[in-house]
Amino acid sequence: MKTRFKAHIETHFPEMLQKPFLLACSGGVDSMVLWTLCRESGLDFEVAHCNFNLRGDDSTKDADFVTEMGIIWNQTIHVKQFNTVAYSASHKQSLQESARVLRYEWFADLLRERNLTFTITAHHADDQLETFLINLIRGTGLEGLTGIPAAAKGIRRPLLPFDREEILAYAHDTKTPWREDASNTEEKYLRNRLRQSVIPNLKKADSRVLGNFEKSLDFLKGSRALLGNHIAEVRDRVLEKEGEVVRFPLKALEQLSPLDPYLYELFRPYGFTDWQALRRLMDGISGKEIRSATHRLLRDRTALLLRPVQAQSQEIYQIYPQVSPNPSDLPMILSEVAHMEQAGKNVLYVDRETLKEGLQLRKWQKGDYFYPLGMSGRQKIAKYFKDHKFNLFEKEDQWILCSGDAIVWLVGHRPDERFKVTGQTKQILRLEWRG
Amino acid sequence: MKTRFKAHIETHFPEMLQKPFLLACSGGVDSMVLWTLCRESGLDFEVAHCNFNLRGDDSTKDADFVTEMGIIWNQTIHVKQFNTVAYSASHKQSLQESARVLRYEWFADLLRERNLTFTITAHHADDQLETFLINLIRGTGLEGLTGIPAAAKGIRRPLLPFDREEILAYAHDTKTPWREDASNTEEKYLRNRLRQSVIPNLKKADSRVLGNFEKSLDFLKGSRALLGNHIAEVRDRVLEKEGEVVRFPLKALEQLSPLDPYLYELFRPYGFTDWQALRRLMDGISGKEIRSATHRLLRDRTALLLRPVQAQSQEIYQIYPQVSPNPSDLPMILSEVAHMEQAGKNVLYVDRETLKEGLQLRKWQKGDYFYPLGMSGRQKIAKYFKDHKFNLFEKEDQWILCSGDAIVWLVGHRPDERFKVTGQTKQILRLEWRG
Repeated sequence: MKTRFKAHIETHFPEMLQKPFLLACSGGVDSMVLWTLCRESGLDFEVAHCNFNLRGDDSTKDADFVTEMGIIWNQTIHVKQFNTVAYSASHKQSLQESARVLRYEWFADLLRERNLTFTITAHHADDQLETFLINLIRGTGLEGLTGIPAAAKGIRRPLLPFDREEILAYAHDTKTPWREDASNTEEKYLRNRLRQSVIPNLKKADSRVLGNFEKSLDFLKGSRALLGNHIAEVRDRVLEKEGEVVRFPLKALEQLSPLDPYLYELFRPYGFTDWQALRRLMDGISGKEIRSATHRLLRDRTALLLRPVQAQSQEIYQIYPQVSPNPSDLPMILSEVAHMEQAGKNVLYVDRETLKEGLQLRKWQKGDYFYPLGMSGRQKIAKYFKDHKFNLFEKEDQWILCSGDAIVWLVGHRPDERFKVTGQTKQILRLEWRG
Repeated sequence: MKTRFKAHIETHFPEMLQKPFLLACSGGVDSMVLWTLCRESGLDFEVAHCNFNLRGDDSTKDADFVTEMGIIWNQTIHVKQFNTVAYSASHKQSLQESARVLRYEWFADLLRERNLTFTITAHHADDQLETFLINLIRGTGLEGLTGIPAAAKGIRRPLLPFDREEILAYAHDTKTPWREDASNTEEKYLRNRLRQSVIPNLKKADSRVLGNFEKSLDFLKGSRALLGNHIAEVRDRVLEKEGEVVRFPLKALEQLSPLDPYLYELFRPYGFTDWQALRRLMDGISGKEIRSATHRLLRDRTALLLRPVQAQSQEIYQIYPQVSPNPSDLPMILSEVAHMEQAGKNVLYVDRETLKEGLQLRKWQKGDYFYPLGMSGRQKIAKYFKDHKFNLFEKEDQWILCSGDAIVWLVGHRPDERFKVTGQTKQILRLEWRG
């Protein structure tokens, strides 16, 4: 195996022969064999072990074992403790996903700090097939069936062409020690069943299964790449950017056929994977909204509007006479002027004396009302929005200039009657909105 | 099961309730249960059984059994004998592929003759998963992993949502008789192994496997459809038609990335599935050619040229003084004229007296030579081709007008010196090529 391993890295990962890298080691047989192979090939590397603290005493013993092997084999070793449970709770992610994120974040940090090229992991051919079958059993799309990549950002997987039997045999031949993984997650359970009763029978049914399976994966990866090109082209044709909002015109979407897989591919990058929900949104009434972990998707009259989820600012910024410290993101400019000139929707002149409570800027709130300039009586701002066909995102983004409880300006749209400049005005304030 | 079956066809195959159809029956448990279900649902149908004569006595017994059930159940039944072995030999196809072709051809004939809507077959959920795994094990692309379609041209598969256990249980409940399939092809062997030892363990590993697998298949079908759209667009962008030859300019091909899967998808419809061979052809020297069962692909200087495989005509057509009977595909018009006028590359005037052996038309042959008009001496036509950069297809398509062994005209290109009209010419023949 050592000879084939060396030939494989010479062809596919020549950097491993030239520059120091990081070896991710759980203490299990696969990563311990990878360690042995790299040692025996005389490569320059350091070892990293994550302790996710998910299996009590066993987690500690794994970390101790890897540390000890580092001393015996005289290898630089990094061990880090993670509070995976807390991370999982605070990030609303599964333990498994949390461990994945924590692991790869730390590896990336180590690469930078220690000046290493990339991290190598011990995934092998059986892992590939197991992962494929697990995703198949769980009902997944093409991207879940294209396998574990041999090279991805900052990661290399030099054991992918080798299977479990070879690895075990090599561990025995070289007397490499390892620790059995004692974890018992749902995925682990499924993986073990596949490992024990499904895959051996597949191999018995056809001995070429791993090799041919690799060929199938290559085909699927190719298809996936072409599909990626197609979706990029369709995306360019269909979507329109408007600031941070992305518009998907309904007319353009409706021309896509078959629609469901297009919806899936177009909106999956934003966390929307339920194409039936997308379909209902398209067919539903305007004003409806669905959310993913990262994005909001709004059914507007003629388009689906997409924007990132973000905390809506609840702050109130002082504009006059004091100015909030460093409100650099508020493009409102105030000046005292002798007379009015150059009006426009982004410029407002007010009578300073009417501003008993100064000027403040805040986002629109439900219940807001004002006395629109030139109209008699008051109007709910919600009514103004409706009359002018504001969509939800536009309403949320609308700035309001107030003086205490009273609204001075629906910024960029309509001034209030009560603060206007009249013949009696002594001091004019000019406000310019540069949003 | 009967209730679910009825609900399923009402939703997905309502035509089965309205118009007579054909039921394909092997005599095995799946198709016998389908027969029972259709009978008990009071549907209007006829039954077809193919005897491929591949299993000697067993084949006959299967046919007898189905015929007998037709009598007992008072159902119109069609049985046909096929010489599958002979067909397989003469068409150079596997027995399995031959049986498939023969079966579907006959079903199509029966639909027309008997005025039936479509053929229904008894493929079920386990068949789907088995087929998927077989293709996976064999190393196949996306199209091999998208499953058996519920509806294809002239075929419907109303049992796809049902699994093997349900079908067996229903056979027992209704005392439906059937015959065990005694065939033992390589695929059958593989299928049985999957059926006995792989799929039961997959189901044990996760009981939702069939349902989720269906979801995975839906995803893959969706991806396949989008990929089909993409390839159609790329094909439109890349290829150029020139008569029956299709040009794939190398420049356009080289811009496709990743190239290998594009080559696979673009040339698969013409029977070329080995992308490495396609790659070698692109990178190779001009003049090389590869062939599939149906097409030839030629590396020309700036493009790959594709054309259907066809028998090259070896015939010699008489043009003058006799004319071959009905050479309607030969667009050569001969007339006697008083003087020459309106020359051009597709018109030739010859001196009748020089034509001791009449005029014949045939395709170019290796070794042909002529005395080009205006040149002294003779020239190999192969040399003319080379000088004028004819590609292989153009050479093969080149017509030659002869008089016995002597070449009169390299049609559409160059007349021969020896047959030209001179001051001594008494009778001029005018030949016009309308190719």
